[in-house]
Amino acid sequence: MVIQPNGQIQTFRTENGKMREKSLTMDTLNPQVKAVEYAVRGPIVTKAGDIERGLQQGQKHPFTEVIKANIGDSHAMGQKPITFLRQVVALCSFPELLDSSSFPEDAKQRARRILQGCGGQSLGSYSASQGVDCIRQDIAVYIEQRDKGVPADWDNIYLTTGASDGIVSILKMLVSGQGRSRSGVMIPIPQYPLYSAAISEMEAVQINYYLDEDNCWALDINELHRAYQAAKEHCHPRVICIINPGNPTGQVQSRKCIEEVLHFAYEENLFVMSDEVYQDNVYSPDCQFHSFKKVLYEMGPEYFNTVELASFHSTSKGYSGECGFRGGYMEVLNLDLEVKAQLVKLLSVRLCPPVSGQAAMDVIVNPPLPHEPSYLQFHKEKRAVLGALAEKAQMTEQILNTVPGIKCNPVQGAMYAFPRIFIPPRAVEEAMSLGISPDMMYCLRLLEETGICLVPGSGFGQREGTYHFRMTILPTTEKLKVLLEKLRDFHIKFLKEYASLEEPKR
Amino acid sequence: MVIQPNGQIQTFRTENGKMREKSLTMDTLNPQVKAVEYAVRGPIVTKAGDIERGLQQGQKHPFTEVIKANIGDSHAMGQKPITFLRQVVALCSFPELLDSSSFPEDAKQRARRILQGCGGQSLGSYSASQGVDCIRQDIAVYIEQRDKGVPADWDNIYLTTGASDGIVSILKMLVSGQGRSRSGVMIPIPQYPLYSAAISEMEAVQINYYLDEDNCWALDINELHRAYQAAKEHCHPRVICIINPGNPTGQVQSRKCIEEVLHFAYEENLFVMSDEVYQDNVYSPDCQFHSFKKVLYEMGPEYFNTVELASFHSTSKGYSGECGFRGGYMEVLNLDLEVKAQLVKLLSVRLCPPVSGQAAMDVIVNPPLPHEPSYLQFHKEKRAVLGALAEKAQMTEQILNTVPGIKCNPVQGAMYAFPRIFIPPRAVEEAMSLGISPDMMYCLRLLEETGICLVPGSGFGQREGTYHFRMTILPTTEKLKVLLEKLRDFHIKFLKEYASLEEPKR
Repeated sequence: MVIQPNGQIQTFRTENGKMREKSLTMDTLNPQVKAVEYAVRGPIVTKAGDIERGLQQGQKHPFTEVIKANIGDSHAMGQKPITFLRQVVALCSFPELLDSSSFPEDAKQRARRILQGCGGQSLGSYSASQGVDCIRQDIAVYIEQRDKGVPADWDNIYLTTGASDGIVSILKMLVSGQGRSRSGVMIPIPQYPLYSAAISEMEAVQINYYLDEDNCWALDINELHRAYQAAKEHCHPRVICIINPGNPTGQVQSRKCIEEVLHFAYEENLFVMSDEVYQDNVYSPDCQFHSFKKVLYEMGPEYFNTVELASFHSTSKGYSGECGFRGGYMEVLNLDLEVKAQLVKLLSVRLCPPVSGQAAMDVIVNPPLPHEPSYLQFHKEKRAVLGALAEKAQMTEQILNTVPGIKCNPVQGAMYAFPRIFIPPRAVEEAMSLGISPDMMYCLRLLEETGICLVPGSGFGQREGTYHFRMTILPTTEKLKVLLEKLRDFHIKFLKEYASLEEPKR
Repeated sequence: MVIQPNGQIQTFRTENGKMREKSLTMDTLNPQVKAVEYAVRGPIVTKAGDIERGLQQGQKHPFTEVIKANIGDSHAMGQKPITFLRQVVALCSFPELLDSSSFPEDAKQRARRILQGCGGQSLGSYSASQGVDCIRQDIAVYIEQRDKGVPADWDNIYLTTGASDGIVSILKMLVSGQGRSRSGVMIPIPQYPLYSAAISEMEAVQINYYLDEDNCWALDINELHRAYQAAKEHCHPRVICIINPGNPTGQVQSRKCIEEVLHFAYEENLFVMSDEVYQDNVYSPDCQFHSFKKVLYEMGPEYFNTVELASFHSTSKGYSGECGFRGGYMEVLNLDLEVKAQLVKLLSVRLCPPVSGQAAMDVIVNPPLPHEPSYLQFHKEKRAVLGALAEKAQMTEQILNTVPGIKCNPVQGAMYAFPRIFIPPRAVEEAMSLGISPDMMYCLRLLEETGICLVPGSGFGQREGTYHFRMTILPTTEKLKVLLEKLRDFHIKFLKEYASLEEPKR
């Protein structure tokens, strides 16, 4: 019997004297699983959880509370659910409530309609693999309205388990080939690490195109060309992924830029994946959300009838913030018919997305109308959430930019700031000697000293030699202000501690 | 521009005269996706949907209704939800109901406890990747009670999106190597096609061990040895999967047989995956459910402290039949600590299982106690569901065995019968000439002539030259009787039509 330093039994002798090892060890683990990284729930977050439990058990720390600004989890940060959405879900879950006078008629109408679409009129039946028919129809109507009349066919709509599920499914279809013909996937850097994780898991080739930090994280078409041409030498670029509004970078793409990307995709015959889960989260008055699909339509039939596009949406973000329901959908365009059948087959293996999440998605695309009883309350709640986010977006940028050694682009949309931080060379050296990235060391120190939990920029990707962190703007205004002030104080202290001849860069 | 027979544009010339093809076609699709098969929602089910829509639009068929006995989807077949479960989910979804006097106190207590475990006390927050802590604790208590005191550690419990999600995640960890060192996965034949689909998708090696149809689909330990030894020549067998009670075969494994399997796994150093989603579905009075974990414990510490085991459960089956909520959990045993961290990382990428599904799972493991107000109703509803299933299991076996050319083993558990059907040589020839499997032709004909939707045995695997179908026992007693009688008449007619010199085998 061999006892490991961690107290585990690794190998031992069986009754008949055979040597026996664990069947699943770090040596025998699927190397693609080992290669996966997912910073949003990485070591910092684990440590934050440990500290939180310690605080509850009376351990002493230089703070009384851990503030988690690591993940876009609105309700966990105190945001209240949209009443109408929850009424509909409760009615669907327990249809006896349809007889209750304490629920508004429009919520009941939505619930009845959804239940009509479910097998046995129950949320407990599997839906079709693509999702409940009437919900897909509602989504198509919503998209047509959003895109000012651009046609949407509900046959192209697939409900998903959050947006992640759809993104992974489409990527899975697109990965093939070996060596130089292996599929390449173009992703923005910085990116949301679901993309890099999925690419690792599928052993596809990750092609980085860098967003332009000096230009408010805009997508630069020349950089796309550069990345594409360089990648062509060693793989077969097949997909371009765009996140708009940006995660972790908070920028909102201009219409012109979207048109350039689509033209590029058309010319290079790339499949376009547009992650548009933050479509309702636009704060800057100078910015507007343009869906990739609408722009494609406006470019004319030569584009609209040919470019293969999948766009993704979710219940988790926007004004509802319903992450736990794992609702989402994707719309595909110009998918080959046989490929579509293959996609349905692939989704069928997992049977269906959670039906309560589908119901939540339905409310988002089919909210109360002006003549309906819940209209006023719904819009009041929606405005309150989006108004507060807009305010916090501005506050975050303003306060961060008062700190020497921190530079933050405007948070035009989404839920995150991704400021650049100056880390003194001596701190960089120390981190290197510890075998961790400098921004990881920074975030660990920040957590230990202030209780603030952020994610290091290295978890999203950044230009060599630059350092960042991602923070959400989700804490309440009051708490966010405290967070930003603590962060400022920490940063100044950190700079002082590692002070060198070099001046912090602004 | 090249227009395909299906009307799609496959290739065309761009503005600048370049030839452009669709980026994603059957030729460029990931071949692993292409290889996936999933019969439970395969072509028969698509056709059934088409016929159903046709009927609604007034098309004429020799029947007025499609009866779907292809999938274990209880509520779709008319089973009513368990009231207490839905009350708890509704309370969690819309906590204002906690003030309503129309909900019983025990349901409110469950809901409050679950919400306490959620970030911001909202079902809309992401849970930890492993699931909500208190639900994992409840599951551990449930397992200890089920297994008569065998210890369960909630650190080993992971909530999942249905059982499928857990099964795929564990398999993903175990697949590695190339060529002769590629991971082999032992699965029963017939099997639930999630296994073969996942194995295809991951390019692992499928190792078939055949269940013994002549012995009530029992698992024969000699057959395990045979399959293992044969597979060792061309791959590295690493996992054995067991489905108990069996899907599609409905058998319940004996304690002795489980012990043999575990001994075999121990000796050959195999990871054990026990799919126990039908643990509450045992109908035959001679049978009893034994969890693999409990048997392992009873084999002594040499086994209990070493064999790596993952067992799976779900909200979708049992007496609740809540498929749409996509709730489930897995318990792991003896997993290497570093591997465990890797598993959590892998699950983190998808953020968390649906929280309403987690809540549903909690009710199943933490039902009303004898002194609580909902106790009587809960048990009345539970008994009614399980009693009806037991009755239908028996009726299915009895009626099918009156049909010449059909032989059905007892449906001891789960929700399915998997009878063997005699298909006359001339029908086999006809199917071959059509390029489809004989049992597929049989099921297609059955659907077209009677409206009954079953899944051909070939979708689950069967011994060469034998033919089967899987049918659920879920239609109401009355409808099931009609189904079985129609099936009998169809079979007799089918035999007559293809009559040859050969006598139907009984």
